[in-house]
Amino acid sequence: MTASAHLTGVVPPLVTPLTPEYDVDTASLARLIQHQLSGGVDGVFVLGTSGEGTFLTDEQRQVVLETTVAEVAGQVPVLAGVIDTSTNRVAAHVSAALKAGVDGLVATAPFYAATHPAEIERHFVRLKSFAGDTSLYAYDIPSRVGTKLPAALMTALGEQGVIAGVKDSSGQDASLRELVISRREKQLENFAIMTGSEVTVDSALAFGVDGVVPGLGNVDPAGYVRLFKAAVSGDVAAARDEQDRLFRLFEIINAPDRSRMGASSAALGAFKAGLFLLGVIDCPLTAYPCIPLSDTEIAAIRPLLDRAGLH
Amino acid sequence: MTASAHLTGVVPPLVTPLTPEYDVDTASLARLIQHQLSGGVDGVFVLGTSGEGTFLTDEQRQVVLETTVAEVAGQVPVLAGVIDTSTNRVAAHVSAALKAGVDGLVATAPFYAATHPAEIERHFVRLKSFAGDTSLYAYDIPSRVGTKLPAALMTALGEQGVIAGVKDSSGQDASLRELVISRREKQLENFAIMTGSEVTVDSALAFGVDGVVPGLGNVDPAGYVRLFKAAVSGDVAAARDEQDRLFRLFEIINAPDRSRMGASSAALGAFKAGLFLLGVIDCPLTAYPCIPLSDTEIAAIRPLLDRAGLH
Amino acid sequence: MTASAHLTGVVPPLVTPLTPEYDVDTASLARLIQHQLSGGVDGVFVLGTSGEGTFLTDEQRQVVLETTVAEVAGQVPVLAGVIDTSTNRVAAHVSAALKAGVDGLVATAPFYAATHPAEIERHFVRLKSFAGDTSLYAYDIPSRVGTKLPAALMTALGEQGVIAGVKDSSGQDASLRELVISRREKQLENFAIMTGSEVTVDSALAFGVDGVVPGLGNVDPAGYVRLFKAAVSGDVAAARDEQDRLFRLFEIINAPDRSRMGASSAALGAFKAGLFLLGVIDCPLTAYPCIPLSDTEIAAIRPLLDRAGLH
Amino acid sequence: MTASAHLTGVVPPLVTPLTPEYDVDTASLARLIQHQLSGGVDGVFVLGTSGEGTFLTDEQRQVVLETTVAEVAGQVPVLAGVIDTSTNRVAAHVSAALKAGVDGLVATAPFYAATHPAEIERHFVRLKSFAGDTSLYAYDIPSRVGTKLPAALMTALGEQGVIAGVKDSSGQDASLRELVISRREKQLENFAIMTGSEVTVDSALAFGVDGVVPGLGNVDPAGYVRLFKAAVSGDVAAARDEQDRLFRLFEIINAPDRSRMGASSAALGAFKAGLFLLGVIDCPLTAYPCIPLSDTEIAAIRPLLDRAGLH
Repeated sequence: MTASAHLTGVVPPLVTPLTPEYDVDTASLARLIQHQLSGGVDGVFVLGTSGEGTFLTDEQRQVVLETTVAEVAGQVPVLAGVIDTSTNRVAAHVSAALKAGVDGLVATAPFYAATHPAEIERHFVRLKSFAGDTSLYAYDIPSRVGTKLPAALMTALGEQGVIAGVKDSSGQDASLRELVISRREKQLENFAIMTGSEVTVDSALAFGVDGVVPGLGNVDPAGYVRLFKAAVSGDVAAARDEQDRLFRLFEIINAPDRSRMGASSAALGAFKAGLFLLGVIDCPLTAYPCIPLSDTEIAAIRPLLDRAGLH
Repeated sequence: MTASAHLTGVVPPLVTPLTPEYDVDTASLARLIQHQLSGGVDGVFVLGTSGEGTFLTDEQRQVVLETTVAEVAGQVPVLAGVIDTSTNRVAAHVSAALKAGVDGLVATAPFYAATHPAEIERHFVRLKSFAGDTSLYAYDIPSRVGTKLPAALMTALGEQGVIAGVKDSSGQDASLRELVISRREKQLENFAIMTGSEVTVDSALAFGVDGVVPGLGNVDPAGYVRLFKAAVSGDVAAARDEQDRLFRLFEIINAPDRSRMGASSAALGAFKAGLFLLGVIDCPLTAYPCIPLSDTEIAAIRPLLDRAGLH
Repeated sequence: MTASAHLTGVVPPLVTPLTPEYDVDTASLARLIQHQLSGGVDGVFVLGTSGEGTFLTDEQRQVVLETTVAEVAGQVPVLAGVIDTSTNRVAAHVSAALKAGVDGLVATAPFYAATHPAEIERHFVRLKSFAGDTSLYAYDIPSRVGTKLPAALMTALGEQGVIAGVKDSSGQDASLRELVISRREKQLENFAIMTGSEVTVDSALAFGVDGVVPGLGNVDPAGYVRLFKAAVSGDVAAARDEQDRLFRLFEIINAPDRSRMGASSAALGAFKAGLFLLGVIDCPLTAYPCIPLSDTEIAAIRPLLDRAGLH
Repeated sequence: MTASAHLTGVVPPLVTPLTPEYDVDTASLARLIQHQLSGGVDGVFVLGTSGEGTFLTDEQRQVVLETTVAEVAGQVPVLAGVIDTSTNRVAAHVSAALKAGVDGLVATAPFYAATHPAEIERHFVRLKSFAGDTSLYAYDIPSRVGTKLPAALMTALGEQGVIAGVKDSSGQDASLRELVISRREKQLENFAIMTGSEVTVDSALAFGVDGVVPGLGNVDPAGYVRLFKAAVSGDVAAARDEQDRLFRLFEIINAPDRSRMGASSAALGAFKAGLFLLGVIDCPLTAYPCIPLSDTEIAAIRPLLDRAGLH
């Protein structure tokens, strides 16, 4: 994917399968990638929030990048999360990802400190100087980063050629809409707008978003591909039905007991448990120190997969 | 400092002086350390929030650690921040800090994800397995990490020998008090409780806190040492007067224009500007992408230093 | 409107026009209502957040209720906000509204205290005992109340006949979608789901929401009516175009200087200024102690009205 | 108490005892007041947050005011909460409280809307015009109101004679300290600064706060009076011991199950249960719709009273 390519469609943020010893399970990762390619996805995104990128050592990140690039083998674009606290630290991940041969880079605002829009702007501008011709996407996930990326800053950075688009996991529909309208007004044809929401995809596509980066797409990539195709072909009813089915499938994240683990551990644990039950990955473990799902919690996910027609 | 030593007194969290090219300025760092030792501090803490640890690359962190250990030369304990998003990533910093020869390690809860108390407990327990005999301190700074460290978990980890104490930058006095009372009830004599607040030190010491880790101590270490000595000798009025003077000196953080930079950039920029004006460091720059203070903003700090009797 | 009627369409939350002396301006209110009826609205909602209900004395609230019921004269349903801190205090407003002859009641969760879902359930159950046959709607506006109304509780209260629907101003699309899907699954045909968002109406209607309660509808009721008609007739492109035009018109709320007044004062002040400029109301004043818009701020709104084709 | 009197000492925010039918229990209220007077308090504060003022109807508020003024009979000042959403609505409570003959008025910032400092200033200025010579206090409780009262605004309003002081329930010690230091610098001798924290009273008094408004003082007024006397006489150790005992007594608020009721219901329910177990009030019920404590939860409070020496 070059800077002129426009990201679109279904690009799941892949989980990182782990062994019981907390190593990256490359065989399971390869099967997960084949599961995605069979499902017809338009790209894959590794080392994002779903990919537990912030939990992995630099060495583990590199294993994920190299395994993914090799397994995908150019069939679809590979996007890599380069998420870290500050510009210089992200730059090191950019360098590693470029070396591995990824097609796009996905960075959040700085976190822990430096949260002013003017500082966020400086951050992305410098990152682009490291990214060169490779597309850089801004990743808006205020629940983790603590800062909302302002829509006006995003499109301004698009006009400057700094970012090639935004992955919006803010859950704020009005802001997402602002991006779409501003893009049209500014004639930013090559600026991609992707939603990270699993449950409002048909709506987002209907008002002009280009695609979706759904964590749940790990489990059911084919479902999101059907949803996308129905939406872009104007079959509103089919898109809504598929979305509603996926909405209910998304309830697997409520199977784990939220009183004994964090929300992130529950959601990612549920995605991994689903993949484990479907035979795609060998071990449902989430990264240390996340609390793993119990056997009972894992078992509670199977009927929800069945209900959604996944076997 | 071994696991049986009890941290106490004034332990400023050192800023990391930078060159105009954003490299670590080791000569200025050495002068800053001499400024601290002359002021009579009981320890120094590098690579914390004030030290912009999360902004620095692994190589830059190593330079800070080695320069500090060499310059301090065993005169007081050196504590090192090992702040990162997850257990495995912190572990790499622990290893580097131990290699550099520090006397204590300071870690936050995981951030970006994994925020349940049970997950935080697993985090510290595993970190201690890497720290060995070196003291591990928990750093409670919910404004940055997004999670408050529960007092009951802290003292439980103290009883298990996992952590040697807490640096409390939560700003929640009731929680700090809970730590002090629980420590007494559980007879945890070797559990250190340090406040990170610049402006309530006399009160905290009066109800039983052991010491202070004040960012403002970069600028005026001698003032905090006087405050500490007055407080422990029972001279309430002298302690309060010194605290009130430092309270007003702390207003240097309001000199920068908060509408054009983040709060963190303003505070650390003010500390660095103060040190620059006092001739301790050569350049007041904060880490990229923080917005630097303007000449006007730096100049506005001088009268506040004068008012506090610093020249 | 009886309990079996299903609320639908465009139901603007009317502002309360004030005189320069901060009295209710009944002549302006009557003109505002005619402006709405001419625009083709399906109902009006007084004493909501846009109606500044929480700013008005009991006497002023009564004037608004009586003026509205008289002016509407049964042409469309009149909904009344009965917003107050606790069940007993809301009950007094319910009684007054029933006496004035309104067709529906709109209540939030308790605020200032008592925010547990079990407490919220008790609140609505008791309110319904006061409302009798008059429809009671739950108003979900966590930005003001501090609590999100859980979707599962809302549909459960619907099944029990306690509430006749929800006005969702939460801005959380996933939750709104949950309401729609649950309603269908539970076959709650008479449960109304209305969005309070000005800027995502076409999307919300597309996935099954019944209508909209747009503050901006004060200014441009006819626009929202066109949007609604386009959406329900399946003309996706026309609905989107109308929504996009209204999205840009909504920027009038950014005309006031946010550094000198609250966000609420700015938004309501902009709606009132728009109505003032259009000749509908005599005075753009917001309720005391809100900071009023300056002449310059009011003047800045006119070109935005022009751009949207409003004269 | 006239405008020139300076509020000081222990001024508990009285709970409002209720009958099983949710009426104000005036006999229990009278006994509660005698319990306070016997304990040696310096004033009482009714219809605050602990007094569930926002839950009561106007008529019930009036019963509380009149019962309290009659029972106190001028022995100590009576302060009345006049808490409501907006200036005009507060004004009605001011009028009622003045009619009942209270000695001071306590008002929060507006809530639900109008939260800008300039709007808060207008709010208090107008309230003072209604209060006349009766002292008006600002009540800073951001956890309920959603807005922190800026210290600089508070002392400015003090200089203008608008407010006679602040009750600080913000839990932010640095801000409380700012009030104390600013008062001294501005020579505002008649400006009262009271903390609302139950658990940091000795510290607050040591750095210059005038007194405390402790919810827990309902249960143990004599303890807070001893704490106050020890602190002002300079007996730091005795003050700390008393504070530590009260810190542990405050754990009664953890006896109720927080998963089945709100935090406010738990705390006020615990205070009322304590008073019920001590024989002061007849019924431990909190206001509707708060979930009442179970018999088991009430029973769990008794050993905590015993441990604190209360029988």
